Amino acid sequence: MLSKNCVKYINALKIKKYRQLHEAFIVEGAKSVLELLASEFEVEFILATPDFQQKYSSILSDHKTLVETVTPKELEGLGLFQTNDSCLAVAKTKDNVFLSADMQEYALILDDIRDPGNLGTIIRIADWYGVKKIICSPDTTDFYNPKVIAASKGSFTRVQTYYTNLPEFLSKHAKGRNILGAFLNGDSIYEHKFSADGGYVVMGNESNGVGPEVESFITHRITIPRVGEAESLNVGIATAVMLDNMRRIVG
Amino acid sequence: MLSKNCVKYINALKIKKYRQLHEAFIVEGAKSVLELLASEFEVEFILATPDFQQKYSSILSDHKTLVETVTPKELEGLGLFQTNDSCLAVAKTKDNVFLSADMQEYALILDDIRDPGNLGTIIRIADWYGVKKIICSPDTTDFYNPKVIAASKGSFTRVQTYYTNLPEFLSKHAKGRNILGAFLNGDSIYEHKFSADGGYVVMGNESNGVGPEVESFITHRITIPRVGEAESLNVGIATAVMLDNMRRIVG
Repeated sequence: MLSKNCVKYINALKIKKYRQLHEAFIVEGAKSVLELLASEFEVEFILATPDFQQKYSSILSDHKTLVETVTPKELEGLGLFQTNDSCLAVAKTKDNVFLSADMQEYALILDDIRDPGNLGTIIRIADWYGVKKIICSPDTTDFYNPKVIAASKGSFTRVQTYYTNLPEFLSKHAKGRNILGAFLNGDSIYEHKFSADGGYVVMGNESNGVGPEVESFITHRITIPRVGEAESLNVGIATAVMLDNMRRIVG
Repeated sequence: MLSKNCVKYINALKIKKYRQLHEAFIVEGAKSVLELLASEFEVEFILATPDFQQKYSSILSDHKTLVETVTPKELEGLGLFQTNDSCLAVAKTKDNVFLSADMQEYALILDDIRDPGNLGTIIRIADWYGVKKIICSPDTTDFYNPKVIAASKGSFTRVQTYYTNLPEFLSKHAKGRNILGAFLNGDSIYEHKFSADGGYVVMGNESNGVGPEVESFITHRITIPRVGEAESLNVGIATAVMLDNMRRIVG
C-alpha cells in the first residue's frame, strides 16, 4: 500500500526545484529501471508490481534495494506522463562534476536545448555513437527531468553531463581544440575531415541555433547539406547526422 | 462565431474513419497553414484569428479560400493536441495514387510505422534529403493524422505517399532494383556504395523492424554501426542517417 508521503515525494520529484532539494529523481518503466539497477546510480527505493518482482526476483534480491509492492493501478495513479504498469524507481542524482573532452575524444556541447524529449533523444544518440560526455549550458533542460530520462531509453546511465557557463568553459578548457558547430550556412559535413585529435561538437537551441557568445569559439562551421525543401532538421536528427559523419571518419 | 456544425466536423476529422468519409483533413498552426496555402492541396476553409488575417491578408486574398474569423480561445477550444493561437485549415485529402521510384531515384518504403510522430518526422527528413516518394504498408499510420501533419512541419505538402501491400508492390514493381533495408546485423553503411541507379530504402516497425515478408525482397542489408551501448536508434533517426549516407554518395 502506497503511503501518502511516498506519493507526495514522487510528485515533488517531477519538479526540478524538489529534485535539487532532495538530490533524487524518478525512473519509470521496466527497461529504464533495469538499466538503472545495472548502473552505478544509488537507488533509494523501487515501487514494483508483483508481476515485475516475480519476473526479476534475482536482479532485485542481488541489488538489495528496498522494494515496495504496488498495484498497476497505483502506479498509473502516480499520474506520470507515460504508461507504466510495472515499476518506478527513485534514485540519487549525481553531483555536477567537471567534464572535458580528452585528447582523441569527441564530446557534445549543448547550447540551450530546451525540449526534454530532444535532450533525451540526444543522450540516446550519444550513447549509440559512443560519445560519453555532454557539456550543457545552464539553460539546457534538466538531465533528471522524467521526460529526459524516459526519452533516453536507459542511456542516461551511460552518458555523463556537466552543466556550466559555456563561454567560460570554452575559454578556459577548450583552447587549441577543434570546436565544431552545426549551422545552416557552414561547410558541407561531407567535406569535413573530422580530426583524430577529437574535440567538441556544438548543437544549438531548437529555435535560435548556437548563440553568438558560443559561436565566437567555433573553429569549424558545419552544415548538413539539404537536397530538398524542408526548412530545418530537428536538433536530435542533426546531432545523429553529425556524430554519424564523425564516426565514419574517426571510427 | 464558430458554428456547432463546424466544431463537430473538425472533431470528426481527428478520426481516420471520418477523414476517409469526408476526404478531408486538418492542418494546424501558422507555419503549416502557410505551407498548405502555397501547395497544390485544395483548401475547404480556414479558421483564423484577426491577427493572423491581418498579418497574411495578401496571401489570404490571393488564395480566395473561405476564411472564418475565430478568437484564439475558440481555436484552443477545438481541443487539438498542440498549442495553436493563430489558425486552422481544413483541406481535401489526395487520392492514394500509385508511386514508384524512377531510375536514379531513391524512394522510402515504410513497413508498419505506427507512431504518428515518427511518420511526421520521417516525412520532414525525406523532404530535407530530397526524397519525394514514400511507399507505406497499409498498417503504417495514416498520413493525414493531425499529429503526422504537425510533426512534418509543412513537409507533408512536398512528399507524396502511396499506401499499398508491400510484398505485392515489391514483387510487381521493384524487380531488378536495389532494395536496401535497415537491420541491426547487416553490412556497415559506411562501406555501402549507394548505387546511382537509385532504388528503395526500407525502414521497419518501431518494435519489430522489417517484417519477414518484406525482408525476403531486400537486396542489401545495411547497419548503422554502433560504437557505444544504446540498444537501438529511433526509426526517424535511423532514416535520417540512411538518407544522409545515401546523399553523401549519390549527391
